[in-house]
Amino acid sequence: RTDSDRLWESLMEMAKLGATPKGGVNRQALTDLERQGRDLFIQWCRAEGCTIRIDNIGNIFARREGSDPNAKTVMAGSHLDSQPTGGKYDGCFGVLSGLEVIRTLNQHNITMQSPIEVVAWTNEEGCRFPPCMMGSGVFSGVLEFDAMLARTDADGVTVSDALDAIHYRGSDTVSPSEIKAYFEPHIEQGPILEDTDTTIGVVIGGLGQKWFDLTLTGLEAHAGPTPMNLRRDALMGAAEVTQALNRIAFDHQPHGRGTVGCMTLHPGSRNVIPGQVKMTLDMRHWEPEALESMGQAVTAAVEEICQRHGLEYELTPTADFAPEHFNKACVDAVRQGAAKLNLSHIDIISGAGHDAMFVGRVAPAAMIFIPCKDGISHNEIESATQEHVHAGCNVLLHAMLDAAGL
Amino acid sequence: RTDSDRLWESLMEMAKLGATPKGGVNRQALTDLERQGRDLFIQWCRAEGCTIRIDNIGNIFARREGSDPNAKTVMAGSHLDSQPTGGKYDGCFGVLSGLEVIRTLNQHNITMQSPIEVVAWTNEEGCRFPPCMMGSGVFSGVLEFDAMLARTDADGVTVSDALDAIHYRGSDTVSPSEIKAYFEPHIEQGPILEDTDTTIGVVIGGLGQKWFDLTLTGLEAHAGPTPMNLRRDALMGAAEVTQALNRIAFDHQPHGRGTVGCMTLHPGSRNVIPGQVKMTLDMRHWEPEALESMGQAVTAAVEEICQRHGLEYELTPTADFAPEHFNKACVDAVRQGAAKLNLSHIDIISGAGHDAMFVGRVAPAAMIFIPCKDGISHNEIESATQEHVHAGCNVLLHAMLDAAGL
Ligand SMILES: NC(=O)NCCC(=O)O
Ligand SMILES: NC(=O)NCCC(=O)O
Repeated sequence: RTDSDRLWESLMEMAKLGATPKGGVNRQALTDLERQGRDLFIQWCRAEGCTIRIDNIGNIFARREGSDPNAKTVMAGSHLDSQPTGGKYDGCFGVLSGLEVIRTLNQHNITMQSPIEVVAWTNEEGCRFPPCMMGSGVFSGVLEFDAMLARTDADGVTVSDALDAIHYRGSDTVSPSEIKAYFEPHIEQGPILEDTDTTIGVVIGGLGQKWFDLTLTGLEAHAGPTPMNLRRDALMGAAEVTQALNRIAFDHQPHGRGTVGCMTLHPGSRNVIPGQVKMTLDMRHWEPEALESMGQAVTAAVEEICQRHGLEYELTPTADFAPEHFNKACVDAVRQGAAKLNLSHIDIISGAGHDAMFVGRVAPAAMIFIPCKDGISHNEIESATQEHVHAGCNVLLHAMLDAAGL
Repeated sequence: RTDSDRLWESLMEMAKLGATPKGGVNRQALTDLERQGRDLFIQWCRAEGCTIRIDNIGNIFARREGSDPNAKTVMAGSHLDSQPTGGKYDGCFGVLSGLEVIRTLNQHNITMQSPIEVVAWTNEEGCRFPPCMMGSGVFSGVLEFDAMLARTDADGVTVSDALDAIHYRGSDTVSPSEIKAYFEPHIEQGPILEDTDTTIGVVIGGLGQKWFDLTLTGLEAHAGPTPMNLRRDALMGAAEVTQALNRIAFDHQPHGRGTVGCMTLHPGSRNVIPGQVKMTLDMRHWEPEALESMGQAVTAAVEEICQRHGLEYELTPTADFAPEHFNKACVDAVRQGAAKLNLSHIDIISGAGHDAMFVGRVAPAAMIFIPCKDGISHNEIESATQEHVHAGCNVLLHAMLDAAGL
């Protein structure tokens, strides 16, 4: 068993870096606050005798050697960066659970056959520098390294400059072929485990995602003298597209998701008919054909709505990830770990993107979910219990021991 | 006759202050750019020998004395502030036509019985500080002075501080009882004159307005793991309210108008379900009962929509103006001026609010409309011809001469 208090104390210590008044965390990728989080993590790992590798996109790998010099590594990890109004558990729970596994093995003087490695991936959230899961995406070859270095934040700072500014552009080469198994513990960020009173989600995979930027252009005109029937109101189109996206998601249940998260009106004056609306579309599904069908349905709906309202439009894909099915052996290791520990568990599909979904394309991978309060995440009030955190870490320990061999 | 080129040159000179790349103007109320516009107007008026008065809300009155010390004043005017993406003619055409009348009288050495006065009202647009027509509203007692001073812009700056910052909080008292007649030339800001190939709109009154601020509150949550049926998406409510407002306006034709001009989403992240939406509602009608009925229908729709989507809401009235019927004698003076000048003219109702609608409550008032290209206003591409500008100014001259007596 891992040490519940030790893990909890490390989580609370890490949560001090970027702590917000409402109990959350603002520790965005590659900021100086996140640098402090990285430094603290490395300090803790060195104290456990780990060697540290940092690759060219700033991913940190902390390694505890095994007895067999030829054995592949058994890895755990997640991310240390947060949303601007993020919580204490999203990401840190996974990284620090991996560290707790190493601490437990050291404490009990257990030597595994395989090396045990903990990874903190760079910029999982993608809120400062889109896209999300940048570090694991570059690692697994899904995202192009040079293109990612050139991505900029809202102030025009590049990933490249931000990496240099915090001195985390490494020169170590870490290859996916070194990995025997990768496990990522994470809070569910959704309501299912809590609703079903379950402690452990055995994550069998994750929804595919399609993201679009949409610009609708009509004609801005005065709200008073412009008769209703002579308008080309871009917001009337945006309202219908919002509803269409939701209806299409409802038409693709149980797995379909559709969300408009951003919408800005131009000129944005209370007595001017909006001449232009920019909005984002986020679509997700578990089946590739269904995700494709959602994308086509939305594209057709946008076309039809714009024609009816006399609007022009531009629909640009900004992300397109296939659904990920995790490795059967890794998923089984998680399920058996939960069973051995007598923890209630169900199979679950992740609605959110995670580093494990990119790692899973190039190495065996799986995830362990624990409940979070009211299913709320990406919010300062995000919360999880010490009991669930400890349970998730214990499942990780069992799954890693299973994979690493004694 | 007034001098067409002199008027046109002044209009183009004023349009340089806050000029935008697309040929429009961004000179919002009580900004430093608008201060420059005020300074330029005062400089031009002083050059014509006018005395300047500035009242406590920053309205500027430029006065040319008449022969009769007991005569009431004949006033013309409009406003110098613009929308964020406004045009060159909205407001300035009225103010500078008034100035052109004074220049013409000076040029021909004509002394009128009444004083002739040109006024530039503060914050007609209301886009930076709602409500619109603030200066004329305070002047005519429709809007409460202290409450208006406390109104804030999006950055939290008050009208009071903004007035001080540009040094336009005056101490002169100007009373509505001084006014014999008030005339306001303005572009139509709608398509009717152009559609009917008419030069002059004889404005018999203006639509009443009801404005609301609406905040819808649901629950922000992660766009991926949150199932569709467990969401409280504030934007889904906002989309329906937008459609309901439009439908209600269509149900109240021919005079009904309904517009959502502003909408902001919180937190505004592409993979977060919007937890809160703030939006504005603008409703208009010519009949007081119909405007009342529109307000009630929207209030009921908001209630029903929020209940269905599990949202809380706050609906706050920000403006509520009754329809205005202009003074018969003033309207006749405009109509006769157009007839004498052999200009095509029709009676018309203003869809936009204008300072004349507030002044008209406390003094005899009327308006003169000229066509604007494609009926478009509150847009950088707003346009009017020099011929129509000159025609409107000539009608103003005739109406003012008629009212002021030789
Ligand atoms: N886990 C997580 O919040 N990932 C961000 C990417 C997403 O929107 O799924
Ligand atoms: N004329 C004009 O643009 N007034 C602004 C107030 C309104 O929205 O009617």
